Amino acid sequence: MTIHEKARAMKRVSPKTANTDIETRNTALRAIADAITAHKDEIKEANAEDMAAAKENGIPAPVLKRLKFGDEKIADVLGGIDQLIGLEDPVGKIQLKRQLDEGLTLIRQTVPIGVIGVIFEARPDAMVQVSTLCLKSGNCSILKGGSEAKRTNRKLFSVIYEAAVSAGMPDGFMMLAETHDDIDQLLKCDDSVDLLIPRGSNAFVRHIMDNTKIPVMGHADGICHIYVDKDADTDMAVKIILDAKTQYAAACNAAETLLVHKDIADELLPKLGEAFRAAGVELRGTPEVRERTECAEAAEEDFSTEYLDFIISAKIVSDIDEAIDHINTYGSHHTDSIITNDDAAAEHFMDLVDSAGVYRNCSTRFADGFRYGFGAEVGISTGKIHARGPVGLEGLVTYKYRLYGNGQIVGDYASGARQFHFKDL
Amino acid sequence: MTIHEKARAMKRVSPKTANTDIETRNTALRAIADAITAHKDEIKEANAEDMAAAKENGIPAPVLKRLKFGDEKIADVLGGIDQLIGLEDPVGKIQLKRQLDEGLTLIRQTVPIGVIGVIFEARPDAMVQVSTLCLKSGNCSILKGGSEAKRTNRKLFSVIYEAAVSAGMPDGFMMLAETHDDIDQLLKCDDSVDLLIPRGSNAFVRHIMDNTKIPVMGHADGICHIYVDKDADTDMAVKIILDAKTQYAAACNAAETLLVHKDIADELLPKLGEAFRAAGVELRGTPEVRERTECAEAAEEDFSTEYLDFIISAKIVSDIDEAIDHINTYGSHHTDSIITNDDAAAEHFMDLVDSAGVYRNCSTRFADGFRYGFGAEVGISTGKIHARGPVGLEGLVTYKYRLYGNGQIVGDYASGARQFHFKDL
Repeated sequence: MTIHEKARAMKRVSPKTANTDIETRNTALRAIADAITAHKDEIKEANAEDMAAAKENGIPAPVLKRLKFGDEKIADVLGGIDQLIGLEDPVGKIQLKRQLDEGLTLIRQTVPIGVIGVIFEARPDAMVQVSTLCLKSGNCSILKGGSEAKRTNRKLFSVIYEAAVSAGMPDGFMMLAETHDDIDQLLKCDDSVDLLIPRGSNAFVRHIMDNTKIPVMGHADGICHIYVDKDADTDMAVKIILDAKTQYAAACNAAETLLVHKDIADELLPKLGEAFRAAGVELRGTPEVRERTECAEAAEEDFSTEYLDFIISAKIVSDIDEAIDHINTYGSHHTDSIITNDDAAAEHFMDLVDSAGVYRNCSTRFADGFRYGFGAEVGISTGKIHARGPVGLEGLVTYKYRLYGNGQIVGDYASGARQFHFKDL
Repeated sequence: MTIHEKARAMKRVSPKTANTDIETRNTALRAIADAITAHKDEIKEANAEDMAAAKENGIPAPVLKRLKFGDEKIADVLGGIDQLIGLEDPVGKIQLKRQLDEGLTLIRQTVPIGVIGVIFEARPDAMVQVSTLCLKSGNCSILKGGSEAKRTNRKLFSVIYEAAVSAGMPDGFMMLAETHDDIDQLLKCDDSVDLLIPRGSNAFVRHIMDNTKIPVMGHADGICHIYVDKDADTDMAVKIILDAKTQYAAACNAAETLLVHKDIADELLPKLGEAFRAAGVELRGTPEVRERTECAEAAEEDFSTEYLDFIISAKIVSDIDEAIDHINTYGSHHTDSIITNDDAAAEHFMDLVDSAGVYRNCSTRFADGFRYGFGAEVGISTGKIHARGPVGLEGLVTYKYRLYGNGQIVGDYASGARQFHFKDL
C-alpha cells in the first residue's frame, strides 16, 4: 500500500480511535510504558546501531547527543508517560449546552482532530512523546522521525504500537513513515490527514508549509526579541538577556535581537558588551551600538536572522513604539520580552506586540509547554489559527455540535410558528 | 498602492485596531447604524443602479433577489447591528491565569486575529454583517463582495468606514477590494493577511483554498445526509426530510442524500416518494430504492454531488455502520442527521459521524449561527482546525500568552535552583 492508501485506511479508523474511552487510552499508555521497559535492551541495541552509523557518516556532536537514547532518556520518557496518564482527558468536554427551543438541545463537545501527521527531529524521545500525546487525545497518527534515528524509531514504533493495540486501541491507529518520499506523499493526503505538525529546521518547516493543502501547525522562524526600556534595572536586563541567548541557543525561543531605548543605552551597553564577551557571545550592533561597546557591525539582514547560535544583533530605538514596530515587522510572532520597571510601558508593549508570547522582566526561554504547566508539548505554533504558542493536548482536539430534537423543522421557525428561546443549560 | 502594499499597511494598523476598547467599538457600530440610516437614499440609489445593470446582463432571478437592498433588508441589517452591539466583547477574555512560580504569572487572553480578508456573495447585507462582525471583534478587514453589487458596496463601504473612523477606529482599519485581480493579489498576501473567509460557490471556495498559503476558514461542499434508522417514526422522517431538502434548497445545510435502513425502507420509501412528487423534488435512487418507489436512477457520482436544488439521492443500507461509513466517505463533514427512536443508535451515529454537526430527529437546516444563538455568523467551517461549524465572533479571535516576571531566567529552573509550582489563580 502507498502512504496515501494507508492514510485513507487510517481516516476510516479515526472515528473508532476518537471514540475509545479514556480508560482504554490510559491503559494503553501504561502498557506502552511497560513494553518500553520490557524491550529496553533491544531498543538500546537499535539505538547503538543508529549511533554507529551516524558517527560513520560524520554527523555533528549536538545531533549525536539528541540521537542517543540511553537509560537516562528512557527514564525521562517513562516519567513523561506517567505524567501524561495523570492529565485530564481533553476529549468529550462540554463547551456549550443550550436549549434552542423546547425539546431542541445543542451541545458542543470536544473531539479529537482525527488523523495527525507529525514529522520530527532525529530524537527517539520525540517518537515516544508525540505518539503518546496523539494517543492520549484520541487521534490517529502518522509518525516520521529524522532518518538518523530510523532503527531506534522502527523498534520503538513496533513496541509502542503493539502494546497499544493489545490494550484495546484500534488496529491501524498509528503508522510509521520512514523515507523522504513518504513525506512527499504525505503532503498530498489532504483528503485523509487533518493536520500536519512539522518540527525541525526553519527551511524544512517552511518547505512543508509551502507544499501542502493540509493545515500545518508549527513555526518556521523563532526570531525572539528583548527590548530594554528606558526605566529598567540594567543588572536584571543583563541577566535575562544572557539567559535568553545562551541557556540553549539552538532553541526557537532563544533571543536573537536586542532593542535598547536610547536613554538607557549608555548605561546598559558597556556592561552587556562585557558580559557577552565573557560568555563568548558575538554581538552585532548598529553604529549607535558600536559607539557604546566594541562589537561587530549588524547588517540589515541580521535583524531577520535566526542565528540559533551564540550571536545576537542589537539596535538602539528612540522610543517604545519604535521597538514594537521593529518587532512586529522583523519578528516571527513567537515570543518577545520587555525589561522595564514601568507598568504602563509594560502593558503598552504587551498589548501591541503581536506575538504568541509577550513577556515582562523574564527570559524568552520560558516559552515552552512544560514550563507553562501543560505537562507536555507537541510543538510551538506561531500561527494565529487554532492553537498559538506552546501546544499541549488541548491543541490536538476540535469540537463537534450535537443537536437533539424530536421532529423540529426550520420551516416552523421561518414562518414564525415557533420561536427560539436560547436557554443555556 | 497595490493591494499587497495596502495589506502590509493594514497589518501595521492591526495592533492598534486590536487594542481599541469595547466602548469605542460599540460606539463605532452605533455610528455605522446611524450613518446607514442617514444615507439610506444614496445607498438605495446605488443599489438601483446595480439592479438595473444586473437585469441588463441577464442575471438570474434568485441572484437579483439577493442583490436587492431595499427598506426591508436595510431594517434587517440595522437590527443585526443592534444585536451585535449587545453581544459580549470576545476580546480580552482571560482563559488561563497561572502562577508558574512565586512572582512569575502566566495569563492567556483572547485577542483579535489581526487582518481578515472576507470574500462574499453579491449581497449588500453581507457587506454590513461581515464588516461589523470584524469590527466588533477588533479585527482589520479587507472586504470583497460580489461584483454585481459593486456600486452598493462602494457606497456602503464609504458610509461604514467613515462612520467608524469618526467614532475612533484607526485610519485604514478596513478596506474595500473590488476586482478579480484584487482577489488574486490578496491570495498572495500571506505576510500580512492572517485569515481568509471565502463564501460563495463550491468551485470558487475551492479555488481560494487551492491558491493561497493564507489559512482559509469556510466550506466548499455542503453534502449533508439524513439517515433513517430501522426504528424511526416515518411521519417525522418525511416531515424532516422535506424541510431539510426544500425549505431553502440553495443553502449549504440542505440535505443532498438520504440513507434508509433496509428494515424500514418498505414503509418509508413509498410515503416519501409521494411527498417528494407533491413537493416537486426529484428523487434519484439505487435499484433497491426504485423497487419501492418510482424515481430516477442514481449514478455513483450522485452521492458526491451537492445539488443545491430540488433533487435528492437515496440509498438503502443494511445497518447503521454502513450509513456512518457512507457519510464519512462521501460527505463533506458539514451536518448529518439521524432519525431514530433508539437512544443507543442515536449516540452511536453522533459519536462516529465525523462532521461539524451531528443531529438527532431534526432538520439539517438548523446548522446556522443565528439558530445556534450566536447572534451572528461569519460563515460555516467544515475544517477541523480553529473554528468548526457555524462561526460567530468567537471564531474571529485567537489568544496570546502574557508572562509577568521580576527577573526570572530559565537557567535557574534547569539547574534545579528554582522549581515551578503551577498554581491556577
